[in-house]
Formats: sequence, C-alpha cells, structure tokens
Amino acid sequence: MKALVFDKQLTFRNDIPQPEVPPGEALIKVLMAGVCNTDIEITKGYMGFHGIPGHEFVGIVEEVNDADQGLLGKRVVGEINCACLKSSCEYCKQDLGRHCPGRTTLGIFRRDGCLAEYITLPIVNLVEVPEHIPTSVATLTEPLAAGFEILEQVDIKPDDEVLIVGDGKLGLLINHALSTSNANITHVGKHAGKLKLIEGLGGKTQVLDSSADFLQKQFDVVVEATGSITGFRFSVQHTKPRGILVLKSTLASDQSIDLSPVVINEITVVGSRCGLFQQAVDYLATGVDLEPLITAVYPAGQAMKAFEHAKTKGSLKVLIEFAKQ
Amino acid sequence: MKALVFDKQLTFRNDIPQPEVPPGEALIKVLMAGVCNTDIEITKGYMGFHGIPGHEFVGIVEEVNDADQGLLGKRVVGEINCACLKSSCEYCKQDLGRHCPGRTTLGIFRRDGCLAEYITLPIVNLVEVPEHIPTSVATLTEPLAAGFEILEQVDIKPDDEVLIVGDGKLGLLINHALSTSNANITHVGKHAGKLKLIEGLGGKTQVLDSSADFLQKQFDVVVEATGSITGFRFSVQHTKPRGILVLKSTLASDQSIDLSPVVINEITVVGSRCGLFQQAVDYLATGVDLEPLITAVYPAGQAMKAFEHAKTKGSLKVLIEFAKQ
Repeated sequence: MKALVFDKQLTFRNDIPQPEVPPGEALIKVLMAGVCNTDIEITKGYMGFHGIPGHEFVGIVEEVNDADQGLLGKRVVGEINCACLKSSCEYCKQDLGRHCPGRTTLGIFRRDGCLAEYITLPIVNLVEVPEHIPTSVATLTEPLAAGFEILEQVDIKPDDEVLIVGDGKLGLLINHALSTSNANITHVGKHAGKLKLIEGLGGKTQVLDSSADFLQKQFDVVVEATGSITGFRFSVQHTKPRGILVLKSTLASDQSIDLSPVVINEITVVGSRCGLFQQAVDYLATGVDLEPLITAVYPAGQAMKAFEHAKTKGSLKVLIEFAKQ
Repeated sequence: MKALVFDKQLTFRNDIPQPEVPPGEALIKVLMAGVCNTDIEITKGYMGFHGIPGHEFVGIVEEVNDADQGLLGKRVVGEINCACLKSSCEYCKQDLGRHCPGRTTLGIFRRDGCLAEYITLPIVNLVEVPEHIPTSVATLTEPLAAGFEILEQVDIKPDDEVLIVGDGKLGLLINHALSTSNANITHVGKHAGKLKLIEGLGGKTQVLDSSADFLQKQFDVVVEATGSITGFRFSVQHTKPRGILVLKSTLASDQSIDLSPVVINEITVVGSRCGLFQQAVDYLATGVDLEPLITAVYPAGQAMKAFEHAKTKGSLKVLIEFAKQ
C-alpha cells in the first residue's frame, strides 16, 4: 500500500504491506488524513518515532476481527490512544485509557499511523461519522476533541473571561469547543485572516500588537495554543492571580521559562492533551462549517508535497486523500 | 532603631528612625525574626526591593492607631501581605488580600520588613500567639502557613499518595501541615539528618539516590520545595498522569524547563505562596515541637553574622533576637 514513512527521513512509498488485523481491531481504509504539527515534529525526532506518522483520519471499516460486526462498512474516525483496557490498569478502569501506561498511540508511539492507505485500530476507539458531515471536515475531529478536552478538565463558568492565545488550527478549533461554554472569549493571534474565521462564534478577536490597552487585562482562564515560549510568557502574564492557564501545545523542549509568576500569583497550570471523540463529532453534526480551516487537499501521490505545504507559515489544515468514498 | 538594611548591599545600622503608625495599623516591637531564603534572594536583587528585609517575626503590640485597642500589649505574629481592603477590589472582597494588586508585602514589596526593632502592620493582619507557644517556635508561623496554603488550594484525599521533594525548612514545615490531612506522605531529600526531624509525623522518608526502586514510583500529589531545576524535573517525573504538582518555591528565573511532560501527562501544576496564619498558629498550639528546626538564635548586634549563617548549606531556621519579652 501507499504510505508516508519516517525512518531518519520522510519518504513516500507504495510497497508497504497492508497491516494484519489483531483481535478486537478493525481494518480501516483511509479516505482522508490530516497533517498535524506533531507529524512535523516527529520528522525532527519527536518521541523517537519511526514508521508511518499521522493520527487524524476518516476511513471506512473494511474488516472487523471481532464477533460484533456492527461497524463494518461504516465511515469512522478513531481515537488515537490504544489502551490495555485491563481491569487491573489504574487508568483504564477510570476511563482514562489515553493515560494507560501500556498504550500505543496512532502514528506517535509504537503504532503505525494513518498517512497510509490502510490502518488498524481497536474497535472501541472508533466513532461513526454521521452522513451529513463531509469527510474533509470530519478529519478535524481529533484536534477538535483536544479542544473539548479543556472542558473535561476545567470548570469554565458562564461569566468567566477566557483568553485563547494563538490562531493556528488548534487555537481556532479550541475557540469552537469553548464557544459551547457561554464564557466570554477573547482570542488573540498574529493573523487577522485566521482570526476572521472564528468571528462568527461570538467571542472577541484581536490581532496582537494592535492595542497597548489590551495588554493590561488579565483573564480567569487563559489557553496557550502557540507552542512558543513567547506565547507561554504572554499567557502567564495575562492570567489573573488564582486563575487557570491551560497548556494546550507541547512547548519545544528545554527553553528558558521563568515560573516564579506562577508561584507568586498562585496560577494553576493545566496540561491538556487528547480528548474524547464523541463530543467533537456531535459538535460537527450540528452543521458547523469548518471547511474554511482546510487549506488544501492533496491526492496520495502528492503526499510529500502536502507535508511540505503543512510546514509553511500561514497554512491551516492540509489533508491527503488516500481514497474516494 | 537597629535594623538590617538592603540598599545595593546589606548593612546593619542603628540609626534608622522608628516607623510612624498609620491609621488602622499597630506598632510592634519585634522580639525575634527569622531569616528566610527570600531575604537572601532579595540581597541578590529579587523583587528589586530596597529597605529593611524580613517577614517572619513575633512581636509585642506597643501602640495601636485604631479605636479597638484589643491587641495592645499582646504577643503577635502577622500576615505579610497588606491589602487595600476596598469593597471594589476583586481580590479583597473574596478574602484573597494576599493577591490584592495594590498590596504591599512586609520586607518584600514596598514595605519595610521585620529584621528591625520595630515594624508597623495593619491590625487585621495580626494573630495573637497563645502563651504556651515559645517565641522562637512562633516565628515559624509564616512558612508553616505557606505549607497549610496547599490544603487551601488542593483537595488531598485520605488515600492519596503524596510526595514532598526537598528537606529544607519549608519542605519540613510542609510535611507538618500535610500530616494533618491523613494522606500517605513520602518525603525525599538529600540530608538524612533533616529528614530525621519529621520522622515522628507518620510519613515515610527517603534520602535520594539510595534506592533505584523508588525512582519508578509516581504520586497523586507532588510538592516541589527545593527551588531548584533538578528538583522541578524530579517532581514532574514523579507526578502521575492527571496528578497534581504543587510549586511551593519560586524557581530561580529563566532556567531551561521542558514542560512537554506536563502536557502529555495532563498534570495540573499549582503555584502556591502565602497562607492564612490562624491555621498555622492553631497547629503550633497543639504543642508540636518545632525547636529542632531552629539552627541558631543570634542577638540583634550579630544580625549580619546570622544572615551569613542562614546562607550556609545545612542550616535550617536562623533567628535574630531583637528584644527579650
């Protein structure tokens, strides 16, 4: 099958064997897959991963190695953490399989990913995509679920002042997720064009550097979605004493950070990663138009070009189409 | 009056005017005052503070500029943050005067401290010390209250596994505070002699590097009380996924820190600073013996020597006696 493979360098190959289907798992024909910043980081050595990257996809279930064949032929998305699900596992028994110490993670840790024609995933990870959601939009389920994860972890109150820092695709999807909370949202970033995409959601937007006044304000909840040290410092500075700062992107490692304002202002910093898919799919099912977040769709044969496009500044989500439905 | 004064360098002077007593404040004759790491940091430029350092004291109320003269002649300790207490202040109206943006802080920010014969403090900041608590022990109220602050911020459950990292005086006092919570406490540090001082409190202690086995374990709640980057990394590493890491000491600024494990493991980092005094005084009133935490008591004339002693590795609390009761 065709696949992007990372092994010291990224290559496009068409001689990769189709995966075997372990018990309890399904074989999924990938329709479309998204390129995420994590995939780009992986090609720089992140997680020491070697194999097929990619963890955002929509596909069709072609084979099910289980008595329950209910999902056969269905269009699905899939949660990326594959847990041990043993009753003895402290995390799995709390429904926190995404923290299972024995987990594999699609395209990130000990499991080939979805920038390929076929993948396998545990059946329990799959969520059916309602017919009226376009395949392209449904590929955004994974990062959108990561946005909804914030609402799982933080009790955002209706009158809370919330600041989202960063207008990349994750930042914009976080705005979608948090817009369901009735908080007062302000979103700052460097790109007027990107911020425009979420203006219809009800919150305020502001291009940074445009107003010295803004810089004086502090918020009850701040969500850092830039992944940059500058963004982190800005976020700490704009979190109220006793406020909450959600860290949504992994900061590039070993940069200089002054944590003393966190102590002095008794800020709670909440690390936040993957979320549950059902809530994200339900949100997409309301008919929200996320097409503007998709910058380009490339055919599988141009997967390398798609990967390069995803790296360019200004691009939002770049998709690769492996098969038509 | 006699006082230690920091202005570019630390000096001992005996020509400092006794402070005027503003309305709502009391004049306090200092009996004993403690030297804190923060005072040492101040002499290195922390907070840009100039004036009399010091924020840990026990004193006698000598004058009260208020209708209520109830505390006159009493032996007191005092909370170090002096808030605006205006009804329009978002923090003061929530009883969070220690985060009041208009606050001054004893010996740290815009208010002379207690390494002097006399100070003034708002009457509302003062807490009477029960007679049977020795003055030396009562000087530990401030750092002990900082330990109790953790219980204000974090819901520690009876069966939680709690790790305290660092066996300096703050770490040891944190153990005293958390020992009231019925959690399972493990305390690690580098000094067998210091860890011995809290063995009677019921938790486990372990000198670091003595057991490779220990290093595998992760905890529900970890309290970082070393103030070192090594201690911070160790603490992150030993916090369970979805666990809580309490930052109790301000890390020296701008050091390299990798925050990606906080995101990946969805750790909640809780910055924690000053606490309420009453709980700490009530704990001291139970008769707990904290004398072993006091390394030395110097007369006022040897204040500079006391300051130097407090800087030496291995010392715990160093006190300066400004007056006998």
